[in-house]
Amino acid sequence: MLMHVTFTVAVAGASGYAGGEVLRLLLAHPQIEIGALTAHTNAGQRMGDAHPHLLPLADRVLQPTSVESLHGHDVVVLALPHGKSGELTAALAAAGSTALVLDCGADHRLTDADAWEQFYGSTHAGTWPYGLPELILADRGTRQRDVLRSARHVAVPGCNVTAVTLALQPGVAAGVVDPRDVVAVLAVGYSGAGKAAKTHLLAAEALGSLAPYAVGGTHRHVPEIEQNLRAAGAGEVRVSFTPVLAPVSRGILATVTAPVAAGMPAATVRAAWEQHYADEPFVHLLPEGTWPTTAMVTGANTAVVQVAVDERAGRVVALCAIDNLVKGTAGAAVQSMNLALGLPETAGLTTVGVAP
Amino acid sequence: MLMHVTFTVAVAGASGYAGGEVLRLLLAHPQIEIGALTAHTNAGQRMGDAHPHLLPLADRVLQPTSVESLHGHDVVVLALPHGKSGELTAALAAAGSTALVLDCGADHRLTDADAWEQFYGSTHAGTWPYGLPELILADRGTRQRDVLRSARHVAVPGCNVTAVTLALQPGVAAGVVDPRDVVAVLAVGYSGAGKAAKTHLLAAEALGSLAPYAVGGTHRHVPEIEQNLRAAGAGEVRVSFTPVLAPVSRGILATVTAPVAAGMPAATVRAAWEQHYADEPFVHLLPEGTWPTTAMVTGANTAVVQVAVDERAGRVVALCAIDNLVKGTAGAAVQSMNLALGLPETAGLTTVGVAP
Amino acid sequence: MLMHVTFTVAVAGASGYAGGEVLRLLLAHPQIEIGALTAHTNAGQRMGDAHPHLLPLADRVLQPTSVESLHGHDVVVLALPHGKSGELTAALAAAGSTALVLDCGADHRLTDADAWEQFYGSTHAGTWPYGLPELILADRGTRQRDVLRSARHVAVPGCNVTAVTLALQPGVAAGVVDPRDVVAVLAVGYSGAGKAAKTHLLAAEALGSLAPYAVGGTHRHVPEIEQNLRAAGAGEVRVSFTPVLAPVSRGILATVTAPVAAGMPAATVRAAWEQHYADEPFVHLLPEGTWPTTAMVTGANTAVVQVAVDERAGRVVALCAIDNLVKGTAGAAVQSMNLALGLPETAGLTTVGVAP
Amino acid sequence: MLMHVTFTVAVAGASGYAGGEVLRLLLAHPQIEIGALTAHTNAGQRMGDAHPHLLPLADRVLQPTSVESLHGHDVVVLALPHGKSGELTAALAAAGSTALVLDCGADHRLTDADAWEQFYGSTHAGTWPYGLPELILADRGTRQRDVLRSARHVAVPGCNVTAVTLALQPGVAAGVVDPRDVVAVLAVGYSGAGKAAKTHLLAAEALGSLAPYAVGGTHRHVPEIEQNLRAAGAGEVRVSFTPVLAPVSRGILATVTAPVAAGMPAATVRAAWEQHYADEPFVHLLPEGTWPTTAMVTGANTAVVQVAVDERAGRVVALCAIDNLVKGTAGAAVQSMNLALGLPETAGLTTVGVAP
Repeated sequence: MLMHVTFTVAVAGASGYAGGEVLRLLLAHPQIEIGALTAHTNAGQRMGDAHPHLLPLADRVLQPTSVESLHGHDVVVLALPHGKSGELTAALAAAGSTALVLDCGADHRLTDADAWEQFYGSTHAGTWPYGLPELILADRGTRQRDVLRSARHVAVPGCNVTAVTLALQPGVAAGVVDPRDVVAVLAVGYSGAGKAAKTHLLAAEALGSLAPYAVGGTHRHVPEIEQNLRAAGAGEVRVSFTPVLAPVSRGILATVTAPVAAGMPAATVRAAWEQHYADEPFVHLLPEGTWPTTAMVTGANTAVVQVAVDERAGRVVALCAIDNLVKGTAGAAVQSMNLALGLPETAGLTTVGVAP
Repeated sequence: MLMHVTFTVAVAGASGYAGGEVLRLLLAHPQIEIGALTAHTNAGQRMGDAHPHLLPLADRVLQPTSVESLHGHDVVVLALPHGKSGELTAALAAAGSTALVLDCGADHRLTDADAWEQFYGSTHAGTWPYGLPELILADRGTRQRDVLRSARHVAVPGCNVTAVTLALQPGVAAGVVDPRDVVAVLAVGYSGAGKAAKTHLLAAEALGSLAPYAVGGTHRHVPEIEQNLRAAGAGEVRVSFTPVLAPVSRGILATVTAPVAAGMPAATVRAAWEQHYADEPFVHLLPEGTWPTTAMVTGANTAVVQVAVDERAGRVVALCAIDNLVKGTAGAAVQSMNLALGLPETAGLTTVGVAP
Repeated sequence: MLMHVTFTVAVAGASGYAGGEVLRLLLAHPQIEIGALTAHTNAGQRMGDAHPHLLPLADRVLQPTSVESLHGHDVVVLALPHGKSGELTAALAAAGSTALVLDCGADHRLTDADAWEQFYGSTHAGTWPYGLPELILADRGTRQRDVLRSARHVAVPGCNVTAVTLALQPGVAAGVVDPRDVVAVLAVGYSGAGKAAKTHLLAAEALGSLAPYAVGGTHRHVPEIEQNLRAAGAGEVRVSFTPVLAPVSRGILATVTAPVAAGMPAATVRAAWEQHYADEPFVHLLPEGTWPTTAMVTGANTAVVQVAVDERAGRVVALCAIDNLVKGTAGAAVQSMNLALGLPETAGLTTVGVAP
Repeated sequence: MLMHVTFTVAVAGASGYAGGEVLRLLLAHPQIEIGALTAHTNAGQRMGDAHPHLLPLADRVLQPTSVESLHGHDVVVLALPHGKSGELTAALAAAGSTALVLDCGADHRLTDADAWEQFYGSTHAGTWPYGLPELILADRGTRQRDVLRSARHVAVPGCNVTAVTLALQPGVAAGVVDPRDVVAVLAVGYSGAGKAAKTHLLAAEALGSLAPYAVGGTHRHVPEIEQNLRAAGAGEVRVSFTPVLAPVSRGILATVTAPVAAGMPAATVRAAWEQHYADEPFVHLLPEGTWPTTAMVTGANTAVVQVAVDERAGRVVALCAIDNLVKGTAGAAVQSMNLALGLPETAGLTTVGVAP
């Protein structure tokens, strides 16, 4: 493939945070031309008003989200509310579109229709290839990127799920932790809650506060975490999951602990993590004794990971920091798109964060 | 005792955050007269420069910390670096002082000299009555406030320890959780790290970042948590403890999970927490379905608590929010002082936070 | 008046930030009993849900705002949207209420009906005594507190107006600055924008951003500033006013400059400020060379002020920091209430901030 | 010049914020190879410890800053404390280096030796071409980029100066404002204060606070602003300048006002700004009625500008938002380097911000 080949991408839901971040990344992608930008209630708005930081797109106008506006592109990215993507994708196909479709929403992530119905309260829309290239597929001896290379539809993972999965999967895959008693507590930024105005998301509420939500196993990301850890080789999985909102716009810092497998020396634990990510371009195990922070990865598609063995408590503590909008959403979409289009996996993506 | 009885209080280490917060509370205390204010490197400084928010003390000058400056008060509060309080207290006693001494540092918190030496690397200075009035003493069927009523020395608890203990002790005392596999992850504010200038505590580093530290069971608060949970009735205790700095000045949000005891119904779990704190003036169990936030308790001596049972994960999730400088430090000192002086336990303390 | 005399206070609009802050202060007021708490859309809500930091009121329920709910109190505080207070006050009077009414809204602040109509676009509701006790009344040789002592209605000032007025009025009153070319730029926190959910007030938008608004003389506080500076003795007044939102919840830092009067020595300028605030309990001129910060006054009813002469630029730079919800709103209401009720002006109010 | 030509760049002072940001930008530059990275007290440190966000450089080690380490590169960037760059540059030249030298410090910015000595208290080190390509040179009818095209030394501007200059110079150049009474108030982030640990820069101090400094015309950026406005065509210049620290890491929001020239219609004012920046790649005038925010430009080399006429006050209000570390420092260095090396001015630089 020559450098001058470009693909056109349409973004549905371009006025929200996920859509805006996809566009931020695509503006730096050498082989992408940005096509239609669509929205629902914000149709008609200038992009300069919706996303003033995307200066090169400032004078573009949001079109209504429809088969007409999205048809004719090589790629369609859907950044829509849950429940909207299945129907639209079917309508596009019916209209003859052969576009690669990437869904940033949850509709097609779960393989288990029962779990979907339990956590989302609606009918399952089906399962698409899962957009986490680094996910180990224990039963095939390969990674998810191999699946994505032939994908025509991609379900982009949940941001919290990505952080927990990347933190812990090396230990699960290597059998050095017990996945039946995982505890994950995440400090998370406010952009993950989206751009819809709600009182508890106001700056005056958030500044100076630390605020948990969806406590007690009710968060919709729980079954998705379980699914990933099973893919990585776990049999039975149990995950206690608690997110805590902290006053940052971007970032997830996941603290994930699991019992260390009986008799497992600390060096073996560390070796499992080292080997697991040795060849990954976007997952970086830090040197011993330094801890991941979200500032390291702001704006980057990187996950920084660390692992420690707490011998007193008998637990492995695995930490992962990501930018929820990049590796947690839009970066995962672009990385998956690159694989599906046959482009270099890293095209248009950076490992360099914006700090301090 | 009549309302017009007042006690004089000296504060050693008055230029730091803990000392300043003790003074902020004492300024609102109806039966306290503020005496000597002392410091080490900051001796000679105006209080208006050290703590410009304490306007009524602005023109006071910090004296050197010494037996001479501290002698002659009814109460001496020590807000000193670790390792400094034992010697000073002995010197005061030798000089004839009979003052109530409250140590905001760690020196006299632990009963186990081995644990002290393991975590602090120095000789144990002895154990003082522990300044957490709400701590249940399972083997006596009473609370720590009874011990404090006759105390002449008080070891003020660590702030993280208070949050974890208040979150979980109802379940431990009632036997509804298993204390052998506690996992505590805390989102914590920067004032807990003190006022000494260090690069990683700079605003430019903190803003926009979430940063864990002391991962893997190395934090000095671990043995203190274990000690408290044993006091509350646990036999064997194991605690995985991870603090994560978040960009707030004040506040600790502790997420503490432990396995629910076999066959224990959720209603029994909740009842344990309700009964445990029904009569406590400063610990408040929220109504079901609402979660503690640190904004609720900014500036107040309150701990707000919630508990949920995650049946999928088989764990109880207990949450506690405190202001690390108030209920976590200075408020605990004042509350303990009130008990030791025979004053109403709530004198000078508020349950009303400053929000938003 | 004996200590045991208490007054009952009803708060209309108790679910918003201004109403909540009035209640936070009244909970610490020794001579106030909190009566009816009312709201419009939030009627029926528990106070514990509206304002979880006000723990002692958690189980109170918000009643509908009406003559019936508000009647029968000694004091009624109105924290309502603009345009609502005049009608309600008239209805209360018609029903026989003789309550002292304090309006936290703008309706009755301006004396100039034309300015009202120009900036608010509605009919002027009339003028009430202005709740800024420290305002100098140049033509009477007195301060506004003398007017407030007999008031039955009080118009609580705008928060930005208070900061600008307290910064600059000493120079205007003393004739050492030229009020015909005042430039005021304010860094302001998000609570000043209220609790209604709007996209540009979301935490994700605010964190990491500095955002001006109402640029170019369109802010409704402009005519109110002009009115105050004229009260302080200015003839012609011109004010350039620009507010900039910064990611803090509370606080206003006003930087106000005006040309220094011809030939005026710096010492004379400083003396004007010193004399002006020498006897004020809530306005504090800092020592030379130290600058006001909003952290100094968080939660306190204090305004901290500083002044410098920039001889190179030929301007006086006056700075004032306040907590917009306290001295900027609720503290001003309580201070004015104290005066109108014949209580000590400082009752229930503190000069001690919550910092760091 | 072909795409494969690359230039080697050494960075002295690579452990600080300015040096780190230069490297962040150079990592994305298509024609740059990063050479020696040097430091003073941090020599020997891994870059992964100094700047963990620069993952591709993590295993590089900081060398001591010396002629030996810096010699042999095409470009040397100096990010040193004030007073250090002149001597080092001379030593490099003496050793035969012909490198392009870019000084991020202040040493060579001012043309007026008296002003230097007054504000910096040391001997003036001489004047280098000034690294603000957009600066209008009124007496030559050209812009500063023409000077930079042949430069071998560049003095990178002060960050606050850039914001004020870009805000106001269109009005000065067009004669539509009066530069004899400029008032500039800037809300600024903490990274501008550097990475040296100082108490007033601690997160606990900064969070929740708004804090002015260098009030009254004492800031070292004042003479540099005056110099630029004179370059833009002003005769006499007077500037009142006040910076206010706000709790963001990056960003400057400059509010700059000046009297509108007598009889000048608002449309003429706006036209001056429109024409001035019509062809600039990195300065963007926003549509009428929308205001610059720093979030728009985080991580980008863009300055976003807006202007309004306040007819009531008789002043033009010009606003400019920049990222102090990019357009304010490192981006200006790279943009100037591009010009001096004959590369496209925009190489390696983006106009897309990282938001929210």
